[in-house]
Amino acid sequence: MAASDLSEHIRDLPTPCFLLNLKRIKRNADLMIQRCQAFGIKLRPHMKTAKTVEVGLIVTGGSKRRICVSTLAEAEFFTKNGFDDIIYAMLISDSKLPRLKDLAKKLSMLHLLVDNRKHIEMLNACPLSDGKLWSVYLAVDTGSAREGIPWNDNSLTELVELITSSAHLKFSGLYTHEGTASYSVRGSEKVGEVANTTVDRILHIVDRLKKNGIMCDDISIGATPTASLPGNKVKDITEIHPGNFVFYDAQQFTIGSCSEEDIACVVVTRVLGQYPKRNQLLIDAGWSAVSLDGKLANGSYGLFQGQPHLRLVKMHQEYGFVSCDPEKLSVEDFPIGTMLFLYPYHSCATAVLHQQHYVQQDDKVVDIWTPCSQW
Amino acid sequence: MAASDLSEHIRDLPTPCFLLNLKRIKRNADLMIQRCQAFGIKLRPHMKTAKTVEVGLIVTGGSKRRICVSTLAEAEFFTKNGFDDIIYAMLISDSKLPRLKDLAKKLSMLHLLVDNRKHIEMLNACPLSDGKLWSVYLAVDTGSAREGIPWNDNSLTELVELITSSAHLKFSGLYTHEGTASYSVRGSEKVGEVANTTVDRILHIVDRLKKNGIMCDDISIGATPTASLPGNKVKDITEIHPGNFVFYDAQQFTIGSCSEEDIACVVVTRVLGQYPKRNQLLIDAGWSAVSLDGKLANGSYGLFQGQPHLRLVKMHQEYGFVSCDPEKLSVEDFPIGTMLFLYPYHSCATAVLHQQHYVQQDDKVVDIWTPCSQW
Repeated sequence: MAASDLSEHIRDLPTPCFLLNLKRIKRNADLMIQRCQAFGIKLRPHMKTAKTVEVGLIVTGGSKRRICVSTLAEAEFFTKNGFDDIIYAMLISDSKLPRLKDLAKKLSMLHLLVDNRKHIEMLNACPLSDGKLWSVYLAVDTGSAREGIPWNDNSLTELVELITSSAHLKFSGLYTHEGTASYSVRGSEKVGEVANTTVDRILHIVDRLKKNGIMCDDISIGATPTASLPGNKVKDITEIHPGNFVFYDAQQFTIGSCSEEDIACVVVTRVLGQYPKRNQLLIDAGWSAVSLDGKLANGSYGLFQGQPHLRLVKMHQEYGFVSCDPEKLSVEDFPIGTMLFLYPYHSCATAVLHQQHYVQQDDKVVDIWTPCSQW
Repeated sequence: MAASDLSEHIRDLPTPCFLLNLKRIKRNADLMIQRCQAFGIKLRPHMKTAKTVEVGLIVTGGSKRRICVSTLAEAEFFTKNGFDDIIYAMLISDSKLPRLKDLAKKLSMLHLLVDNRKHIEMLNACPLSDGKLWSVYLAVDTGSAREGIPWNDNSLTELVELITSSAHLKFSGLYTHEGTASYSVRGSEKVGEVANTTVDRILHIVDRLKKNGIMCDDISIGATPTASLPGNKVKDITEIHPGNFVFYDAQQFTIGSCSEEDIACVVVTRVLGQYPKRNQLLIDAGWSAVSLDGKLANGSYGLFQGQPHLRLVKMHQEYGFVSCDPEKLSVEDFPIGTMLFLYPYHSCATAVLHQQHYVQQDDKVVDIWTPCSQW
């Protein structure tokens, strides 16, 4: 289907493809925006999941302000499209400074992450012109063991003082991603505990810095589970930066962050082969269209819409191997050409594989969105 | 680095990126071409790995003839670039017939796979014009449980007779992919056994068909392990269709298909963070640049060139988590900005993530190749 063939029925989609549900995306965005308003905090959506201008407009409520990105290509893409107040939510290296400097010129607010003396030294060695300062967040590790200085590390204050004492840097606050911790638990109570622990640990840092005369303007925490099932303490920080919530996926459904009816994306695929002896179907979506990032407890790389007895148990580059529960189904129930819709396990990983995001409203394809890609 | 910045030193490459070694690609291709000549069989390289015109030229020895592809986009891309005699090495469904019909018009030889009566019926219902016939290979399963009718299935002859009796189809031969079987063993002896078993089973089919008066013009078998470590019987079939061998990877090195010095691709990445307490580095290559398709026995998603004591143990979207063996190394040995080169576990899965393939000769970037992508 060419871009000119919009308003086609979804049954005519080429397969494999990635299909978004516009109504669900808007609902997911609205709910998160309202939740933040209720807590009196700001939402800074992470654009690494959707990577499109269209989703950017929806999740910023049309303001095009206050987002996170995880690649320079995303930063440049959203800058070009009029977005501003952007956290480049990755640590930096020298080789990325020329492109960052160019972005800092174009944006009123570009923010960077640092967690090492070397990051600060490289920014000091490459100051911005026209009296501009590099806006710097300290990345802190509140338990996820990814980027960031550990929240209870003794050298933390010293590192912040290197920022505050620099003539070229502005200390903007603290940034943490509690991803690993929040993705490993299940249910609102446990996720809420992770959220509260994250807040406790980051406020512990805020206190320590205050005792040294350093104020944190912004405290940005985030991950979709804790943003969807926040603890009662989230009101004490200034902003959250979840990304995945616009689409959600089978993983978030398992964690309890969303219901199946909130998942706003599917991989569309068709049956190519039937193998009764092994109770298997082959479909035209392999790891190049679905991604291998995670499985449900039943061994399936996603959840087939309306087909609880089908499991995507294995993938090759272009083939998916779908097991039919022989007590419930026969492979003959799925003739060659049958269309299936898979909620992927991790929508961020699936979205990044597709250079076109088809957009569904009711039974029609109403748009094709082009995500930013590469680095 | 823009396309205009060729002849830059590889130290100036943007990261993450995918870098090919031209000399090794040519050597891998030459060896496979010579091996086929020695056995008196044809090479039909599978283009799903490299997906570029440049590699297509190298592996067909400049002839642009006789390739496999695994997406319609690849078929169209190589057709547009003057290639011909193409097996679309995937099962078909109705929705793909319009594009296949268009390809069949443009090519002198387009070949399709079928393994089900329904495939044959859909081709009969959509005949080619101008007296052309659909060229059809029967996909057979010689032990890998992917596509194909099982080699010892009783209904096999009947299925072939449906092809030979059709006024719209030409029976071209047999096609098998012994991937699963050959990837699960190690060393030349075991891989050679899989290769010989594949040949035995497919010749068993040839004999059965001959007894029914049906000749198989072409017998196409393939997978990189068996093509690299063929048994003595491979001379008895007509062609092999490996794909991965142009790049090889850490997996093929583990199987024994190649040496480390044959691996012709790396992910180039830089160190972004150092975490002495957990003996870890963060690098700027996550699953969006490396792929999650497989790990070495030591738990690493690839092999760091010249750094046997580093392991890529975990990935997020844009971050890789690299463990340093604390008895051999310190994270301080790898300052922020340090460039690392990773031989990926499965190069097909890595290549598909990159829309530009940088090409290295000695220390310089001499070209940027643009692969076909999507479907």
